[in-house]
Amino acid sequence: MTTGEKNRAALVGIVMGSDTDLPVMTEAGKTLEKFGIAYEMEVLSAHRTPARAHEYATSAASTTLPVIGVPMATCVLNGLDALLSTVQMPGGIPVATMAIDKPGAVNAAIFAAEILALGDEGIARKLVAHKEELARGVAEKNARLQKQLSEKK
Amino acid sequence: MTTGEKNRAALVGIVMGSDTDLPVMTEAGKTLEKFGIAYEMEVLSAHRTPARAHEYATSAASTTLPVIGVPMATCVLNGLDALLSTVQMPGGIPVATMAIDKPGAVNAAIFAAEILALGDEGIARKLVAHKEELARGVAEKNARLQKQLSEKK
Amino acid sequence: MTTGEKNRAALVGIVMGSDTDLPVMTEAGKTLEKFGIAYEMEVLSAHRTPARAHEYATSAASTTLPVIGVPMATCVLNGLDALLSTVQMPGGIPVATMAIDKPGAVNAAIFAAEILALGDEGIARKLVAHKEELARGVAEKNARLQKQLSEKK
Amino acid sequence: MTTGEKNRAALVGIVMGSDTDLPVMTEAGKTLEKFGIAYEMEVLSAHRTPARAHEYATSAASTTLPVIGVPMATCVLNGLDALLSTVQMPGGIPVATMAIDKPGAVNAAIFAAEILALGDEGIARKLVAHKEELARGVAEKNARLQKQLSEKK
Amino acid sequence: MTTGEKNRAALVGIVMGSDTDLPVMTEAGKTLEKFGIAYEMEVLSAHRTPARAHEYATSAASTTLPVIGVPMATCVLNGLDALLSTVQMPGGIPVATMAIDKPGAVNAAIFAAEILALGDEGIARKLVAHKEELARGVAEKNARLQKQLSEKK
Amino acid sequence: MTTGEKNRAALVGIVMGSDTDLPVMTEAGKTLEKFGIAYEMEVLSAHRTPARAHEYATSAASTTLPVIGVPMATCVLNGLDALLSTVQMPGGIPVATMAIDKPGAVNAAIFAAEILALGDEGIARKLVAHKEELARGVAEKNARLQKQLSEKK
Amino acid sequence: MTTGEKNRAALVGIVMGSDTDLPVMTEAGKTLEKFGIAYEMEVLSAHRTPARAHEYATSAASTTLPVIGVPMATCVLNGLDALLSTVQMPGGIPVATMAIDKPGAVNAAIFAAEILALGDEGIARKLVAHKEELARGVAEKNARLQKQLSEKK
Amino acid sequence: MTTGEKNRAALVGIVMGSDTDLPVMTEAGKTLEKFGIAYEMEVLSAHRTPARAHEYATSAASTTLPVIGVPMATCVLNGLDALLSTVQMPGGIPVATMAIDKPGAVNAAIFAAEILALGDEGIARKLVAHKEELARGVAEKNARLQKQLSEKK
Repeated sequence: MTTGEKNRAALVGIVMGSDTDLPVMTEAGKTLEKFGIAYEMEVLSAHRTPARAHEYATSAASTTLPVIGVPMATCVLNGLDALLSTVQMPGGIPVATMAIDKPGAVNAAIFAAEILALGDEGIARKLVAHKEELARGVAEKNARLQKQLSEKK
Repeated sequence: MTTGEKNRAALVGIVMGSDTDLPVMTEAGKTLEKFGIAYEMEVLSAHRTPARAHEYATSAASTTLPVIGVPMATCVLNGLDALLSTVQMPGGIPVATMAIDKPGAVNAAIFAAEILALGDEGIARKLVAHKEELARGVAEKNARLQKQLSEKK
Repeated sequence: MTTGEKNRAALVGIVMGSDTDLPVMTEAGKTLEKFGIAYEMEVLSAHRTPARAHEYATSAASTTLPVIGVPMATCVLNGLDALLSTVQMPGGIPVATMAIDKPGAVNAAIFAAEILALGDEGIARKLVAHKEELARGVAEKNARLQKQLSEKK
Repeated sequence: MTTGEKNRAALVGIVMGSDTDLPVMTEAGKTLEKFGIAYEMEVLSAHRTPARAHEYATSAASTTLPVIGVPMATCVLNGLDALLSTVQMPGGIPVATMAIDKPGAVNAAIFAAEILALGDEGIARKLVAHKEELARGVAEKNARLQKQLSEKK
Repeated sequence: MTTGEKNRAALVGIVMGSDTDLPVMTEAGKTLEKFGIAYEMEVLSAHRTPARAHEYATSAASTTLPVIGVPMATCVLNGLDALLSTVQMPGGIPVATMAIDKPGAVNAAIFAAEILALGDEGIARKLVAHKEELARGVAEKNARLQKQLSEKK
Repeated sequence: MTTGEKNRAALVGIVMGSDTDLPVMTEAGKTLEKFGIAYEMEVLSAHRTPARAHEYATSAASTTLPVIGVPMATCVLNGLDALLSTVQMPGGIPVATMAIDKPGAVNAAIFAAEILALGDEGIARKLVAHKEELARGVAEKNARLQKQLSEKK
Repeated sequence: MTTGEKNRAALVGIVMGSDTDLPVMTEAGKTLEKFGIAYEMEVLSAHRTPARAHEYATSAASTTLPVIGVPMATCVLNGLDALLSTVQMPGGIPVATMAIDKPGAVNAAIFAAEILALGDEGIARKLVAHKEELARGVAEKNARLQKQLSEKK
Repeated sequence: MTTGEKNRAALVGIVMGSDTDLPVMTEAGKTLEKFGIAYEMEVLSAHRTPARAHEYATSAASTTLPVIGVPMATCVLNGLDALLSTVQMPGGIPVATMAIDKPGAVNAAIFAAEILALGDEGIARKLVAHKEELARGVAEKNARLQKQLSEKK
């Protein structure tokens, strides 16, 4: 995932190595839509791999766009292989690694929004609203729990 | 590490949980200086921990500043504990995790520069120059290797 | 989970970062009820995380209440990430870490009871009774097994 | 490590499976001394093992004293084996597990103090003072860092 | 699992910490029956644990009977915790560790038979027969595979 | 390591895949000498490997001799690779796995002695004496510790 | 899996330690058929194991045929044990290790084809065609994704 | 590492992402020289990474040359990150992964020789001679060990 400049139509590019990653990365897309951030989404060539943030960072290395990586959980090693491939970049090629799978995909979108919010008041306001909404959701769940606990007595 | 807005004196804040992290995070500071990016650096309260990017993200959560995490290698578990604490954030609280220790500290600074370069042409130019310098360094090392190999024949 | 002083209504506070932890932490609540120990239970703000015992310990750090942590198993890394985040606290901020998931939630409650039993004879007696009951349960299972084995001959 | 009742001479018992653990567990002793807490310290029989908190909890199981475990780092597996042996107790036998090695030994002592402070105002006051001292130490280190940074300019 | 002397009724004792281990350890019992080896099987007290081979070895330590351990797979950490607890015994207290779960339970029984066969010709003959039977089973499966492959052509 | 029948000159065969294992396996030899157990020791062919207990068990599979495995710690993966290769045998081919490196080598010898003691009163007596000696050693270390602690007061 | 010389009927031998590996290794067979490469497939003796590439390499060690290993995922340790057993060969006995399970089985076949293609133009042409087909498949999936995205707008 | 066709001057290309890998990969070069196999060796661009076999395989993906990967041990995670990045390739892009570090570098060269030996009798003869030499070395070490053991008696 790379965050681009404002004057390009799509501000964020979501790149996948395989269409099996689509259900996870669609979460990133949905989250960007909440912030009104235009994005493009692509499945890259057959030769993309679990370490694809890695390679993408490399091929995009003459540019200076920030790259965010989301490790995909694999069946056999619980995503540890994808996580280590994505995060353990050598000095000089940063990939901003997020949590494994869906929580990581959502956070990648929020992180991209945080970057873009540095230069865009509208996105900043939507981010603040989103964080308040999350906090409200937890407060409501807690209120429901307190009610249940008091009814039990 | 958080990247701030341009109109503040320091554009990046480097936060450590203990002064034992200073030798590693100083690398981040030096890298930021190469790009001419002003930063502030602080050791936080006694109650900061290996999962401190985590907590810092939480306490800064009502703001919308991007947070970048650098896991510190610990003696006993080779940094795996710090890496997992930093990267496995829940949906809603992204911490852009870098590689463990010095390579991660350097990359955190480059990543912060990439973010700031989106809105600052000068930083963007310095980043491109830095990447070209890295590439030149490798080309020179390769040339030296080819010379050694041909002399051996 | 923190164990409080006797003169407060609730002697134990159970704190969760998300209501998805409720099925596991309810086991802690049920176990405390067996010992007649009053408790309160809360879902904290949206910004609480897998390393939440960690953060809670930090925010409660100016008090001297003991903090007990229960790592929650996550799908992707089998709970290893939560375990390491919870247990690997730096010197100065102890979190008494229990086993992952339900066995840990039950043990957190028993451990809280063991602490409170130091100053409360009634809880101490109930704890001894509980341990005797567990032992009796195993003895009965063993007796059943011996019967099966002898019938098979 | 078990925390006993106030009317016994030693309030905390430190138990080791081998005298090779002595350099680590001496840190727990020193920390208890800061809080004025009397303790006893013993190397148990030849048959104690890396999972010794485990066994000790078992043999002390008819009592209701809280047991705190400190995993010792081993050369070959970086302490992961000791950590998992100590923390993964079954439901019914809690061992309050601390971080691996010295940070864990120090925290075990602080945690024992936190338990005893519930019933002893003097220990509670010393704990608060200790936490303030830690915070002051960090503040001083930070002040020194700010001085260095400003001198560099 | 301990292998006893010939003049006792049961030559092998199978000890479990919980009746949830019964489905796995019953495989050990069945295998011993194939070799005509008498055994006893017991669920021990409530305070037995994942590291129970460990503790059993310790409590039986004044005897010189060989102890064989079978790590049980746990949901959360895939049995790695049980394996490390069982195998990483300190010098002086050997526990002959087998593979995790059912393959380990079967092998524990075969290993006990191998020990007893050193002093019992009848068991030795049955062991040889068992190994020949296993080899025959594989040869038959291979023959079936060759038939399938040739029919496909 | 295999334990043979009594009527052979060497009762135990110690087999290594490389002479780099000699410093570790010499500990097994020394321990066997304490029990007066004759052994032979061999470095096998160039094609033996970290998983060599594995292969040795396989090649010796038509016999019924018990096989004991000692995983050797490797630099890169702390011995986890050797441990998993040795212990995770399929059903039908038990290898009694000991702890990694020297503690495992010593325990392999004690375990072999425990097996041979089933049919040899002399070895049984020496084993009991050895265990008593270990216990005495710990008791002496503990006495020394108590002296130090009381002098400190 | 070994790749043989051209003048033998079967150019590749697929060897399994158990018929439970058949569903995975059949994928290797199917892939070889795509390239028109004749192969033989066998379940070896009862004494083959998770580390079987290991052993096979050893027993075939006086030949100079390349050996390719496919680690099989096991339930309990997610295939990490099989991976480490297969890949961590000592100097002198290479086993070309592929990814765990089906992706590894497919890749083992492609890799065997790549080796044979060095001396066989026909296989080389089929490999190129296969890689083009994979790339076309991805391009089609991407086109479908672009269509979905544009329809959504 | 890729093995090329016979009619090119260099039959094997050794590619590194950094000159810090040179001490390890020089072992591969030396081994190839033993077999009289010409090779070229290069440090690639600044943007190559721990997962570089991965990327190299990808960029060379339109060719059909076999690719062999040698994971480099890193300080912080003992080479587990490099191993998983190298071996866990997706279906379609095989990288023949060798052991971590020097043993892997030597084996990569032997494996390349095994591939080339399929079409070159001279290399095949040198490989057989090399394997005999290794076996002789072990036999000599074993003879020396037997001499030491007999002198000790």
